[in-house]
Amino acid sequence: PEGRVLLVGAGPGDPDLLTLKALRALQSADVILYDNLVTEGVLELARREARRVAVGKVGHGPSVSQADINELMVSLAREGRTVVRLKSGDPAIFGRANEEMAACRAAGVPFAIVPGITAAQGAASALGLSLTDRDFAQRLQFVTGHSRKGELPESINWSAIADPAATTIIYMPRHTLRRFAARALESGLAGTTPALAIAAATRPDEVHVAAAIADLPDRVEDLPAALPVLVVIGEAVRGVREAAATRAAEVDAPA
Amino acid sequence: PEGRVLLVGAGPGDPDLLTLKALRALQSADVILYDNLVTEGVLELARREARRVAVGKVGHGPSVSQADINELMVSLAREGRTVVRLKSGDPAIFGRANEEMAACRAAGVPFAIVPGITAAQGAASALGLSLTDRDFAQRLQFVTGHSRKGELPESINWSAIADPAATTIIYMPRHTLRRFAARALESGLAGTTPALAIAAATRPDEVHVAAAIADLPDRVEDLPAALPVLVVIGEAVRGVREAAATRAAEVDAPA
Repeated sequence: PEGRVLLVGAGPGDPDLLTLKALRALQSADVILYDNLVTEGVLELARREARRVAVGKVGHGPSVSQADINELMVSLAREGRTVVRLKSGDPAIFGRANEEMAACRAAGVPFAIVPGITAAQGAASALGLSLTDRDFAQRLQFVTGHSRKGELPESINWSAIADPAATTIIYMPRHTLRRFAARALESGLAGTTPALAIAAATRPDEVHVAAAIADLPDRVEDLPAALPVLVVIGEAVRGVREAAATRAAEVDAPA
Repeated sequence: PEGRVLLVGAGPGDPDLLTLKALRALQSADVILYDNLVTEGVLELARREARRVAVGKVGHGPSVSQADINELMVSLAREGRTVVRLKSGDPAIFGRANEEMAACRAAGVPFAIVPGITAAQGAASALGLSLTDRDFAQRLQFVTGHSRKGELPESINWSAIADPAATTIIYMPRHTLRRFAARALESGLAGTTPALAIAAATRPDEVHVAAAIADLPDRVEDLPAALPVLVVIGEAVRGVREAAATRAAEVDAPA
């Protein structure tokens, strides 16, 4: 049979947030190359016979180099395997999909993307909040706090970040949040702008802190160091505590 | 039993892009209040006994007013029903979730959000492209082309839109794209910036056009008028045609 590569989004953590298509891909896989942020509950949904290979670690670049991942992925597909490249969130959003698709293209290996719920969407659902609002959150933007070198990216458009009518999501913010917040404030963002940091959104160990953006860098240190963190800034997160208090028990509760 | 409201993301169109949690919500529903962009294939996955009520029409504001939707939703939940408010894409992204959650809060009705794959993610997977890139697409932003009055929103931050290192997604762009593109170009976006418009992404009738942003407004007129359209602007969409040519046949093909 012809091999192929499926770049599959594992979603934010809760296995119930997989798409039906991702579930099908996991159940058709011969080999699964997964990042360490992918949860055990998601991996348990895969075909029992599938070989599982961990290829990434949390937040500090891959433990297996990107070149090695590409080579492994392509060589397995060339042997005729269905290779699932399983990434937390959505492969198309801060998932390095371009690098892996280029490797497939260069090798003549067919590939497809299966989207996933990205961490920001997981956080919004977990906290019961909308990321946009017709009156006060009309633009939604995603940035990474983590450049190729692990530092705050040089190219951030600070005027876009300082916009009071935007909701800003920072992926992988932990090591650079203090500098990010300082630059945003220098660029005109009000220090009182509501913000929050959420760790392990949609997972059983989920925890969050809420504070004005000026105070958030201190508060983030309260979150367990091992958990993946996301920061959300903007009017959209004002009053998150009150909202959480009236959230439905859980969709999973008996109907 | 206590009633409740579940704001559920139906995803971009392909029923396989529902999450497992959304499927479970549809199968626990007593009543489903759905927008017209929700596809027949998604509705078919609902519990047979569930009452289905269409409450929205395409692109020009609801045919049932937001106040009437809120009232219907809350009164059904108060009668003890499990009410699924089913929205295309993700309720937390341009889904007016805040207005409906506020109605639930005011009425003391428990609610939860079940996220969905938003149209931009559906488009990215359908076209085999990444919305971010470590080198040339470091910020991803979603805006709407459609204000409360159906016009181009007044508050758009044009400097954020003109940033050459961003990927910009415009939701509901059809009637305002010419003006949007003109303002973006005046604000410094290069007219040669790659762009595309995709209609009915992930649905069987999906079709797209690709052009430089300066030329896209003319090309969008080639898309069937009845289909929902999304515009993507930025280096991330350069060479989409080539990418599409080597896409895997389909995840749904026999394994």
